[in-house]
Amino acid sequence: MPHIDLQDLPGIRALFAFRPEAGEAISHLAQFLLFSPNSLSRGERELIGAYVSNANDCFYCATSHGASAARLLGDDEAVVEQVKCDFETAGISDKLKALINIAGKVQRSGKDVTTADVERARRHGATDIEIHDTVLIAAMFCMANRYVDGLGTVAPVDLDSYRERAKAVADHGYMAINQQIQSNQKAPAD
Amino acid sequence: MPHIDLQDLPGIRALFAFRPEAGEAISHLAQFLLFSPNSLSRGERELIGAYVSNANDCFYCATSHGASAARLLGDDEAVVEQVKCDFETAGISDKLKALINIAGKVQRSGKDVTTADVERARRHGATDIEIHDTVLIAAMFCMANRYVDGLGTVAPVDLDSYRERAKAVADHGYMAINQQIQSNQKAPAD
Repeated sequence: MPHIDLQDLPGIRALFAFRPEAGEAISHLAQFLLFSPNSLSRGERELIGAYVSNANDCFYCATSHGASAARLLGDDEAVVEQVKCDFETAGISDKLKALINIAGKVQRSGKDVTTADVERARRHGATDIEIHDTVLIAAMFCMANRYVDGLGTVAPVDLDSYRERAKAVADHGYMAINQQIQSNQKAPAD
Repeated sequence: MPHIDLQDLPGIRALFAFRPEAGEAISHLAQFLLFSPNSLSRGERELIGAYVSNANDCFYCATSHGASAARLLGDDEAVVEQVKCDFETAGISDKLKALINIAGKVQRSGKDVTTADVERARRHGATDIEIHDTVLIAAMFCMANRYVDGLGTVAPVDLDSYRERAKAVADHGYMAINQQIQSNQKAPAD
């Protein structure tokens, strides 16, 4: 049960409806890091987010971003589960394994990232921007996971609802989802 | 030494110069949570950020937001140090102690926040918005601390440089600081 009086919406959506200015700023950051053009594919970036959310034991974020990753990686739910369980043996590129290794360090503490971790990523072709974005994506999910669970938001158990949300995010992006939350908020009788 | 090729700027400033779109989104969030009008004073909100950053062992964020808190709380550096060491015995209100207790739980995991923690804050007069903003401020610093340390940014050791930055933030806010970083970035020869 939520710790504060929220609308009956799942996860972070209830929080964006409660505090629209925060929702807009966070949606901008998510749009830039997860949706905008990047040499890391959208599926790879969502996978990093799902991995970190799973490590933080945040069911809502791990499931919703896992569903987005699966959809964007060719409807491959199995690879998402493999990465959550043991990314080093999952069917992903060596570069992505090295980046997920960095994301896992960030999930614990920024200070855990070593020169050797970064050199491993570079050896497999990661650029400075890709290393930067991996660290910030991991850090952003450490924020989102704490926000969602720290206020006790409700996570649906129906996995199909996450697959539907993943389709909407994949097609329209994070800003559009937030705008939809805010317009429903303004016209609750519609 | 930074893990990627950054300009010679301290802490998060080097990252905002490296990736301006991310810098703008994060500055918007910081401006809203730490600078905009709120029933929690700006000093109280900076103190929550300094407390969480200290718990995450992020010297740059703990020192810079500690300096901002001290400045905004009547140039009281002693109370900031007390809160970092043991907030329960520091010279702050019972409401702020209850909110910092929640922030400390969020720093470890969102799931650690209990109904009893929230009831304690309410008993001392905290509103739903104040509880929400405390959780999100704590979560935002969990992001910023990991971003700053995960990329190995440089933290000055000269404490006066943090006091100067605190004055600029107190007077002008986070958006203005980011705009200054970006305009210096665009005209490096000026």
